[in-house]
Amino acid sequence: MPYFDAASATPLHPVARQALLAALDEGWADPARLHREGRRARLLLDAAREAAAEAVGCRPDELVFTPSGTRALHDGMAGALAGRRRVGRHLVVSAVEHSAVLHSADVLKAAGGEVTEVAVGRTGRVDPGTYAAALRPDTALAVLQSANHEVGTEQPVAEVAEACRAAGVPLLVDAAQSLGWGPVEGPWSLLAASAHKWGGPSGVGLLAVRKGTRYAPQGPVDEREGGRAPGFPDLPAVVAAAASLRAVRAEAAAEAARLRALVDRIRDRVPALVPDVEVTGDPAHRLPHVVTFSCLYVDGEALLHALDREGFSVSSGSSCTSSTLTPSHVLKAMGVLSEGNVRVSLPRGTAEQDVEDFLGVLPRVVAEVRAHMEAPAAEPVEERTEEPEAGELVVDSLGKRCPIPVIELAKVIGNVPVGGLVTVLSDDEAARLDIPAWCDMRGQEYVGEAPAERGTAYRVRRRA
Amino acid sequence: MPYFDAASATPLHPVARQALLAALDEGWADPARLHREGRRARLLLDAAREAAAEAVGCRPDELVFTPSGTRALHDGMAGALAGRRRVGRHLVVSAVEHSAVLHSADVLKAAGGEVTEVAVGRTGRVDPGTYAAALRPDTALAVLQSANHEVGTEQPVAEVAEACRAAGVPLLVDAAQSLGWGPVEGPWSLLAASAHKWGGPSGVGLLAVRKGTRYAPQGPVDEREGGRAPGFPDLPAVVAAAASLRAVRAEAAAEAARLRALVDRIRDRVPALVPDVEVTGDPAHRLPHVVTFSCLYVDGEALLHALDREGFSVSSGSSCTSSTLTPSHVLKAMGVLSEGNVRVSLPRGTAEQDVEDFLGVLPRVVAEVRAHMEAPAAEPVEERTEEPEAGELVVDSLGKRCPIPVIELAKVIGNVPVGGLVTVLSDDEAARLDIPAWCDMRGQEYVGEAPAERGTAYRVRRRA
Repeated sequence: MPYFDAASATPLHPVARQALLAALDEGWADPARLHREGRRARLLLDAAREAAAEAVGCRPDELVFTPSGTRALHDGMAGALAGRRRVGRHLVVSAVEHSAVLHSADVLKAAGGEVTEVAVGRTGRVDPGTYAAALRPDTALAVLQSANHEVGTEQPVAEVAEACRAAGVPLLVDAAQSLGWGPVEGPWSLLAASAHKWGGPSGVGLLAVRKGTRYAPQGPVDEREGGRAPGFPDLPAVVAAAASLRAVRAEAAAEAARLRALVDRIRDRVPALVPDVEVTGDPAHRLPHVVTFSCLYVDGEALLHALDREGFSVSSGSSCTSSTLTPSHVLKAMGVLSEGNVRVSLPRGTAEQDVEDFLGVLPRVVAEVRAHMEAPAAEPVEERTEEPEAGELVVDSLGKRCPIPVIELAKVIGNVPVGGLVTVLSDDEAARLDIPAWCDMRGQEYVGEAPAERGTAYRVRRRA
Repeated sequence: MPYFDAASATPLHPVARQALLAALDEGWADPARLHREGRRARLLLDAAREAAAEAVGCRPDELVFTPSGTRALHDGMAGALAGRRRVGRHLVVSAVEHSAVLHSADVLKAAGGEVTEVAVGRTGRVDPGTYAAALRPDTALAVLQSANHEVGTEQPVAEVAEACRAAGVPLLVDAAQSLGWGPVEGPWSLLAASAHKWGGPSGVGLLAVRKGTRYAPQGPVDEREGGRAPGFPDLPAVVAAAASLRAVRAEAAAEAARLRALVDRIRDRVPALVPDVEVTGDPAHRLPHVVTFSCLYVDGEALLHALDREGFSVSSGSSCTSSTLTPSHVLKAMGVLSEGNVRVSLPRGTAEQDVEDFLGVLPRVVAEVRAHMEAPAAEPVEERTEEPEAGELVVDSLGKRCPIPVIELAKVIGNVPVGGLVTVLSDDEAARLDIPAWCDMRGQEYVGEAPAERGTAYRVRRRA
C-alpha cells in the first residue's frame, strides 16, 4: 500500500529502529546521574549529539535535542528574540513558513512586537533581495525555511543568510524538510529540525544555536541540554534520531536522484493525464521527494478519500481537509489554486511501480470525484443554446464550500456575453484563492472582490 | 547488578516495550491526517488517551500527553496561572516540590507574581492546615506533589485538595512519583505525571485539566492535544506509556506490599548496621519503594562511587553530587542531615537478595569512606588527654567542602570544656544544614549562625 505522505512523517528507518531497540536497553537511565547506568546513558547522549552536530554542521555544544521540531522552533525563536530584545522586537519571516513559526510570530505580535511576512512568488520562493529589504535596524530575528513543507520549493537560504549576516541579524533556518538530504549552507545562526521527517522517531527535534548568537531561553529551564530544553531527555529516541540521520545522509545523493526522477515523472505526466490541473512549486529549486498539484472542480477531501480507497496515502492543503476550513496558508501566499489539492511526498525507497500505479489511477479518480460534484466539462466555455442572459449575473454560493462556488461560476460564465460580468457571492475562504486561480486557468478576467451583505462578492468578466 | 534509582528512571516495563514495538509499526504516522496510516495512528492515540484517563481518574478529553513530566508541570502551571490571572498572581507550593515546579514559581516571581512556599515538617510532610492557611483571595494556583521524589514522603493531597476546593483555588497535583501505584484521591483540578517513572518510556508526560478549571495555554500552540501541547506527538511512546500504566497498576497492590517490606528492612536495619545514620522521610506516609538516609562524616559523591563499584546504583541529595554544590532543597526544607545522603528507590521486581546484598556491603563501604575522610570515631565525644582549650575555639573550614567542616567540628568539640563554644567558619552551603543536624544527632547545642568576614560563622556549645 503506497504511502506518499513522507513530508508529514515517515516510517522508522531500519537503522533508527535498530538504534532505538539497543538504546531502550542501554539508555533508559538518567544521563545526569553518577551511577553506571547514568554514565552509560551520558555516553550515548554525547555520541548522539556529536553525530547530529556533524550532520548539521555545527559544534556539539551548539546543539540540543528538543521534544519535536515544533518545540525547537517555538523555543528557538523565543530564545533568539529575547536574546536581542534590546536591539528591537521586529521579526522577519517568509509567508510560507511552517505554522510553528507563524504561531511564534503571533505570540510576538500579541506581546507588542512587529512581524514582517516576506511575500513569495508563484512558485513559493522568496526573492533574496526582497527578504534582505525587510531587515531593519530593530530586527531581532529572521526566520526562513530551507524548503517548503507543502510544495517542496527550496528557499535561497545561503543568500538570505549572507544578507542577514551583513545586516547583523541572526537567521534561524527551519530545516525540517531538508536536513535528511544535506546540511544547510550559508552563515545561519540558528537551525531547527525534526527527526521523524528523515526516518527518525517522533519525539525528537534539534535546535542548533551557533556560538556568538545572543540567546536567552524563555520560560522555566533546568540543567538539561545546557539550559535550553528542559525535561528528562528521550534518550533512546535521540540515539535513534542521530543514527538514522547519519544513515539517510549516506544514502542521500543516490536516493535524491532516484526520487527526483519519480517526482519529475509526476510533474510531467499529471497535467497530461488529468485536465485542469495546476502543478505548484518551483520547477528547479525543489526537494527531491515532494510534488503538489491542484485539480479544478475537485473537493480535496473527497479526492483524498478516493485515493485512500485506491491504496494511496497523500496529503492536501485544500480548505475542506483542514479543521479551520481555510486553504493552506502556503497555497494562499503563492496565489495558486487550492481546490483538489494533493501533496505527494515520496518516502525513501518508494518503488517506481507505485508511482506508475498512482499515475494509472489518478485520472479515473479525479474524473469520478468531478462527476460526483457535477463539475462542468473541461474547456472551452460551454455556450448555452438559450439566449445569453443580461450583461451581469449573480451566483449565490453562500453556505457552499469549495469547490462548489467555482463550479457554479464555471457553469454560468457561458450565460453572459463576452465582456459581461458574473458576480459570485461566497462565504467560503477558499473562493478568495480559487476564483482568481480559475480565471487565470480559464483566461477569464478577475475583476476583484468587495464585501457583500453576506460573505464576499467576487466579480469576473468573461473574456472568451 | 542491582539498580536502586527507580525514582529517577526505571528500565522499560516489558509491556511498555511490547507496546512500543507494535506502535513503531502501527503508529508512526500523523494522527491528524485523513489517510489510513493517519486514521490508524488516531485510533491508537485515542485508545491510549482513554486508558491513561481511566488510570488517572479523569475524562479522556481532560487529558493531554506532553513531552515529559517536567513540561507537563511547566505548561500546566503556566496555563493555570494565566487562566486565573484576573483573580491574582499568587501561587502556593510546598517547599519540597520538584524543581520543575520551583522553576515555574521563579518565572512567576520574575514576572511580578508572588509565591508562598509552605514549609514541611522534619519528615517532609506538609501540614494540611498550614497549607490551607497559605491560600489567599488572590491565589491563582496551588501545587502539591502526591509524594516526594527524594524521601518518599506522601503528602496529604486529598485534604489539601478539599481545602483548595473550599477556597475556590485550583490544585495542581504533581503525581510523578505515585501514579504508577494508584490514582490521586481528592478533588484536584490539574494533575501532572511522567511515564518513565512507572516503567513507561521517556518522552511522555501527562497533563490532566479537569473541566471547569480555568486554563489558558501559554506560548505558541497548535491544534495538537486540544491546543495544550504543541508539536508532533510521540505516539509510539504514548501508546507504550498508557499500556505500561495499566500493567503496573494491575500489579501495584502486590508489588507495593512486597517492596514496602524490603524498604522497611532497609529503614530498620541501616541504623543498626551503620553508626551515625539518619533515616529521613515519613515512617508511615510514604511511597512503597523509596528510602533515604544520610551518613555523618561521609562524602556523598565518594559513597555513591563506592557503592557503584560494589554494583549498587543509588542517588544522592548531597551537595557534592549536585552541579551547584548545594544540598537538595528537599533535605534543606526538612532540616535533616545532607552529608553522605543516599536515596534507595527500588524498581518493580527488585529481588530480596539484592536488598540483602546491599545491607551486607553498606557498613563496610561507609566505614571505608569515613576512614578515607579521617572521620572521628562514633560517640562519645573524644576527650583530649591534654588540657581543654579556652572557652571558645575557632575552626577555619573555609574552602573545604562537605563533610569536612562537620568532621573538623567533631574533632575539636572535645577540646573545649562543657559549656564552651566552637565556631566553625565555612563557605560551604551544606554546613548550614549539616552542622545543626550534627548537633541534633550528638546532643550538642546549635547556637546559630552569623555572617563572617569570609563565609559564615556557625556556633556550637558543648553540652556533653
